[in-house]
Amino acid sequence: MRNLITLLTDFGSEDHYAGVMKGVILGINPDARIVDITHGVEKYNICEAAFMLKSYYRYFPPGTVHTAVVDPGVGGPRRPLALEADGYFFVGPDNGIFSPVIGSVNNPRAVEITNTAYMPGNLSATFHGRDIFAPAAARLSSGVDIRELGDPADGPVSLDVPEPSVNGNEISGVVLYADSFGNLVTNIPGGYIKRVSMVYVGGYALDRISGSYGEAGKGGLLAIIGSAGLLEISVNQGSAKELIGTKRVSVRVVTD
Amino acid sequence: MRNLITLLTDFGSEDHYAGVMKGVILGINPDARIVDITHGVEKYNICEAAFMLKSYYRYFPPGTVHTAVVDPGVGGPRRPLALEADGYFFVGPDNGIFSPVIGSVNNPRAVEITNTAYMPGNLSATFHGRDIFAPAAARLSSGVDIRELGDPADGPVSLDVPEPSVNGNEISGVVLYADSFGNLVTNIPGGYIKRVSMVYVGGYALDRISGSYGEAGKGGLLAIIGSAGLLEISVNQGSAKELIGTKRVSVRVVTD
Amino acid sequence: MRNLITLLTDFGSEDHYAGVMKGVILGINPDARIVDITHGVEKYNICEAAFMLKSYYRYFPPGTVHTAVVDPGVGGPRRPLALEADGYFFVGPDNGIFSPVIGSVNNPRAVEITNTAYMPGNLSATFHGRDIFAPAAARLSSGVDIRELGDPADGPVSLDVPEPSVNGNEISGVVLYADSFGNLVTNIPGGYIKRVSMVYVGGYALDRISGSYGEAGKGGLLAIIGSAGLLEISVNQGSAKELIGTKRVSVRVVTD
Repeated sequence: MRNLITLLTDFGSEDHYAGVMKGVILGINPDARIVDITHGVEKYNICEAAFMLKSYYRYFPPGTVHTAVVDPGVGGPRRPLALEADGYFFVGPDNGIFSPVIGSVNNPRAVEITNTAYMPGNLSATFHGRDIFAPAAARLSSGVDIRELGDPADGPVSLDVPEPSVNGNEISGVVLYADSFGNLVTNIPGGYIKRVSMVYVGGYALDRISGSYGEAGKGGLLAIIGSAGLLEISVNQGSAKELIGTKRVSVRVVTD
Repeated sequence: MRNLITLLTDFGSEDHYAGVMKGVILGINPDARIVDITHGVEKYNICEAAFMLKSYYRYFPPGTVHTAVVDPGVGGPRRPLALEADGYFFVGPDNGIFSPVIGSVNNPRAVEITNTAYMPGNLSATFHGRDIFAPAAARLSSGVDIRELGDPADGPVSLDVPEPSVNGNEISGVVLYADSFGNLVTNIPGGYIKRVSMVYVGGYALDRISGSYGEAGKGGLLAIIGSAGLLEISVNQGSAKELIGTKRVSVRVVTD
Repeated sequence: MRNLITLLTDFGSEDHYAGVMKGVILGINPDARIVDITHGVEKYNICEAAFMLKSYYRYFPPGTVHTAVVDPGVGGPRRPLALEADGYFFVGPDNGIFSPVIGSVNNPRAVEITNTAYMPGNLSATFHGRDIFAPAAARLSSGVDIRELGDPADGPVSLDVPEPSVNGNEISGVVLYADSFGNLVTNIPGGYIKRVSMVYVGGYALDRISGSYGEAGKGGLLAIIGSAGLLEISVNQGSAKELIGTKRVSVRVVTD
């Protein structure tokens, strides 16, 4: 379904910048239907945005244009990109934000957005969300062929996302992301875990994968397969992030 | 009017989880019109969400589907509910979040959402907003009869909301909720207060109900009948919450 | 294009108040399309809201109804206003919030919203966003003539926005606003700056206007022409606000 445009940014909830993008989009495609994902990505945190984008894009109907603007390199040499993959469209800076998406699709088509006919004459150096990405998303949402946005782009930037390692009966991973509940999302797919003896994380040892938060008492630490299908470390009605932190946290799962 | 769906959650403004729910809804009902109420309910604060829901639901056109997901018991035994009442629909966990709404309507119909045809095969243990409530809301918004979602549900959970007490010329109440302006919303209906001599709260005594914030000087404490029709304690262009706190604050109104 | 309504408020992201306004709007005009700009204006900060409103309103299609509610004087003598200017509509309190917009248009028509047929019978003293501004915006969005809202309003309140001063080869200005990235937006138009020798701000001296954030090293202070066409002081991937503050910050540009 065309006309659907999602927005993911690190613009925060205090400024008008996301609102400006919405105005630009509606000025170009009055039928656009704009969906806020969040504007609360940690500032400049490309990895976090990349993880989120991969987590939500497939829940939308094919044809949706996913706009993702976490763009510390705005105004510099990084390329503005548009992608078409598995029936979805993506628009944003070529800084790795699309890396997990690209890893999850077949034959993505990537285009560098260079067609100045779709940009304002006085392009800013600081707000390509408004001047490049919103117009491109609006055009795609109204049915413009992605190839009209510019030339094919080779080799979009790839993020170095850490992979879990399996060594005999031991799986080692890391925390990718902490959500606002303080859940620590690891890079260990639930499918890797057949039977569990122990989960080791931040000095704690857990002897099971819980089936629900409530299996731990209120305030209790637990391991659970989260909604992205990944192992998560949580505190029931509390914050594992506060208990354990997120920086360089490694997780080890040992089966019998 | 069907197609309108509101969202109230404690997911915060930093994560993509509300965005995922929007994708699921639009995947099922492409004509859905999704309205964010707020995703900033205090985490796990069912009472706050319940108070809010009762405060806004009737301002929407009949037929609106109100989705409310503050769900500390997700994945546990608490039932997923759908309600139909006075022409509105409600979807969320059976943990008391609908209690004030149910107290305000005639003959609500409650259904436990059990129809697995409307859920994904791999139901998560941590995100029923995505897997149960968003699909149910989307179906209701597209005209599905609530009875198709599951079987009648007896006795939805009732919150123990404190009632004000009247004793002679004295009304005693408590603070239900503090908003982001620091206004303290009490459980004393404005209609209870005929004439006022004194309002006692947190060690302060106020000798009138103000007609507007401006009647107190800037920074002045005042009592006023707020927008929900309840007595509120406020500071003009400041925060009564900062001055007085919210925990176990009681309010006493004494008339001559 | 009618039916488009934007919302700018200081209601925050934690309360349901913006949601209530959306319900009122959709109850009056079911075809309304509501766009959140932000509800994160600093509480009671009329100047900030005024600056934002001027920054975004023209990006929307003509006919859009821009609702702006930062209203510390709610319930007091300040007038509720509706404006029509250059094909746009504006609704909000007459406290200066429209002052920069009015300064940017030709022959605005201002109306005091007095028509009680468009207000609820039990008008609150604390929430005119719900009781006056949302209904007025909804009426305008559905095609009602602005003159039906009330009588012509003389002399909307004008803000005293500081102007930059030019003295020989020196331009002096101030910081108007800090965004959530910590960028300090000054009142010095980029067009004033022909050639630069030095920019002085908060004890720092910068010898150029940068063409992009990346020209400064990560964490480096820089001056740049921002997306509103104004001189901004920024830290590359950091916060100039944290480094310099925002209160009474003056900026001096000296050319050779």
